[in-house]
Amino acid sequence: MSDALLKGTNMHKPVFDSNEFRRSLGTFATGVTIITVRSPDGEPIGVTANSFSSVSLDPPLVLWSLAKNAKSLPAFQAAEYFAIHILSAEQEGLSNLFASQGADKFGNLNTEQGIGDTPLLDGCCTRMQCKVAHQYEGGDHIIFVGEVVDLVSNDLTPLVFQAGKYSLAARKTDDTPLISSSSSGFDEDFFGYLLWRAYFQFQSEVNKQAPFRGFTSLEFLILVTLAHNNWRAVDTLCDMIVHDGDHDLVGQALESLVEKGLLQEKADKNGFKLCGLSETGNEKALELLTIAKSTESTFLERLGQKESAALKNLLKGFIVETDTGIPHPWERTEGEA
Amino acid sequence: MSDALLKGTNMHKPVFDSNEFRRSLGTFATGVTIITVRSPDGEPIGVTANSFSSVSLDPPLVLWSLAKNAKSLPAFQAAEYFAIHILSAEQEGLSNLFASQGADKFGNLNTEQGIGDTPLLDGCCTRMQCKVAHQYEGGDHIIFVGEVVDLVSNDLTPLVFQAGKYSLAARKTDDTPLISSSSSGFDEDFFGYLLWRAYFQFQSEVNKQAPFRGFTSLEFLILVTLAHNNWRAVDTLCDMIVHDGDHDLVGQALESLVEKGLLQEKADKNGFKLCGLSETGNEKALELLTIAKSTESTFLERLGQKESAALKNLLKGFIVETDTGIPHPWERTEGEA
Repeated sequence: MSDALLKGTNMHKPVFDSNEFRRSLGTFATGVTIITVRSPDGEPIGVTANSFSSVSLDPPLVLWSLAKNAKSLPAFQAAEYFAIHILSAEQEGLSNLFASQGADKFGNLNTEQGIGDTPLLDGCCTRMQCKVAHQYEGGDHIIFVGEVVDLVSNDLTPLVFQAGKYSLAARKTDDTPLISSSSSGFDEDFFGYLLWRAYFQFQSEVNKQAPFRGFTSLEFLILVTLAHNNWRAVDTLCDMIVHDGDHDLVGQALESLVEKGLLQEKADKNGFKLCGLSETGNEKALELLTIAKSTESTFLERLGQKESAALKNLLKGFIVETDTGIPHPWERTEGEA
Repeated sequence: MSDALLKGTNMHKPVFDSNEFRRSLGTFATGVTIITVRSPDGEPIGVTANSFSSVSLDPPLVLWSLAKNAKSLPAFQAAEYFAIHILSAEQEGLSNLFASQGADKFGNLNTEQGIGDTPLLDGCCTRMQCKVAHQYEGGDHIIFVGEVVDLVSNDLTPLVFQAGKYSLAARKTDDTPLISSSSSGFDEDFFGYLLWRAYFQFQSEVNKQAPFRGFTSLEFLILVTLAHNNWRAVDTLCDMIVHDGDHDLVGQALESLVEKGLLQEKADKNGFKLCGLSETGNEKALELLTIAKSTESTFLERLGQKESAALKNLLKGFIVETDTGIPHPWERTEGEA
């Protein structure tokens, strides 16, 4: 524990160290901002900060803090104006760039000139141009309070910082259970159920469309997998899309697709069974693509843009974290046609 | 636009109104805090605030702002100590309570006494006891800077506020594509693929366990659905767990379960076909429950606690938003046994 942390109260010595304090601050989620200014000698200056906070509505004031030992401090202390950019989810790279020391931050960026020649960045959620209202003492930092004099905002998904990691935030769902509780131990919160149900609702919607009534989920999977990479060994296909033991089901689905004229089977020179889409099958797969993409749009629109981004992000994270090495069926593999 | 918003600069009149300013501030995600204090006459006081910000590491300083017209302002201005509680995802109700006017906020709460008799709340992510260091002018607010003199923190999922809504934040996943891009139009970001793949990995893991090798996903679904509510009409069961046209597949799965001695079929008095779990079937369903729950734990642990909470939250939101009225198979329906 540093001596500095021990001062400040004579009755109650703090029982934490600097790392603990940092970690605790991380439990408070924040957005991420880049704050820019023009230095007295005309240099564009910018720093990444998450110490932004709203202060007042009338007049419109916001604040942020900058370390007293920051190289950019003199420029901010001298300036009459600065600009705050609340970053979007796409701007993680920009956040890293402006958080780094000594990098040529503006070299490859298109900036506009704001009030007081302040460099302005694009593609953020909100851009506020501020006139310095106060500079307050704040320990090893200076607190800059600015009056917002110009404002541009849009509906991009914001970048979030929580527990030291870039994050995405999504609206909390109502706590009402999806299904009434049961005595048998599975409940609506069971993850397997949520995954199955979400997938089921998606597939059901596709199945409602006239061209795909009567198609099974497995038939969908086969169509799309072969559309990515036609003529595959039946055994390979089985391993990619069904669990241990379901090979008979794939056989039936293949048979059904052959009957519909969408699939052809043949043997390779070693006698292994291959299957591939017919011309009609290819067209059908493209039609499926169109319908599935439109279902995706409709569904994700209902969920909301930020929530969709967060859900995709988390499903992807889940898939990566729990990947057991099963091949991805849509991946083009070497040596296949 | 209010007159107040027009002042502050003579060169650049703000081109936004108060609502626009508020909305823009909402693009900066924040945690949610409750700040408590003991009034001079001994009353416990608390307010919800998201204007918290870290200021300094050495000394450890944080700040927040309170409206000058807040009833609680005199108490905070008079106090030597206050406490900041960074709320957890479970504390949405507490946040609403302390954001409301005139409610008996402390009536039903168990509080501890902190330094300066400050009332302390439980169950939050972080609790900081602060000694007032500065009170700064901030337009229609006062900025309180406090030196943190005591700190308790834990690993609960934090409550987040974004765009005016309670939210959950989760770590952003690496942007690397899951599968190499394809010319045929479906890509790794396609939502149907992500849902299927996540479900597939989950089921595959369950399938790896010796008791369930060779079981199909449909057999799992039937076992669990009947464990919730035994003896169902086969047609009802079909509608609940497969899409239009898949009824034959359910028939096969039922047959396979009968062969395994897990399922019995009979006709009701009107001649409708019913199916129900045998005693062995019930035991098998409970075994499946245990294995699936343990798979859930393993997988969600790999994803991380905050991410798991966020993923479940979003899947639930997705299911609610895109529900087309298909019955939930695990819901106990009236009139069934």
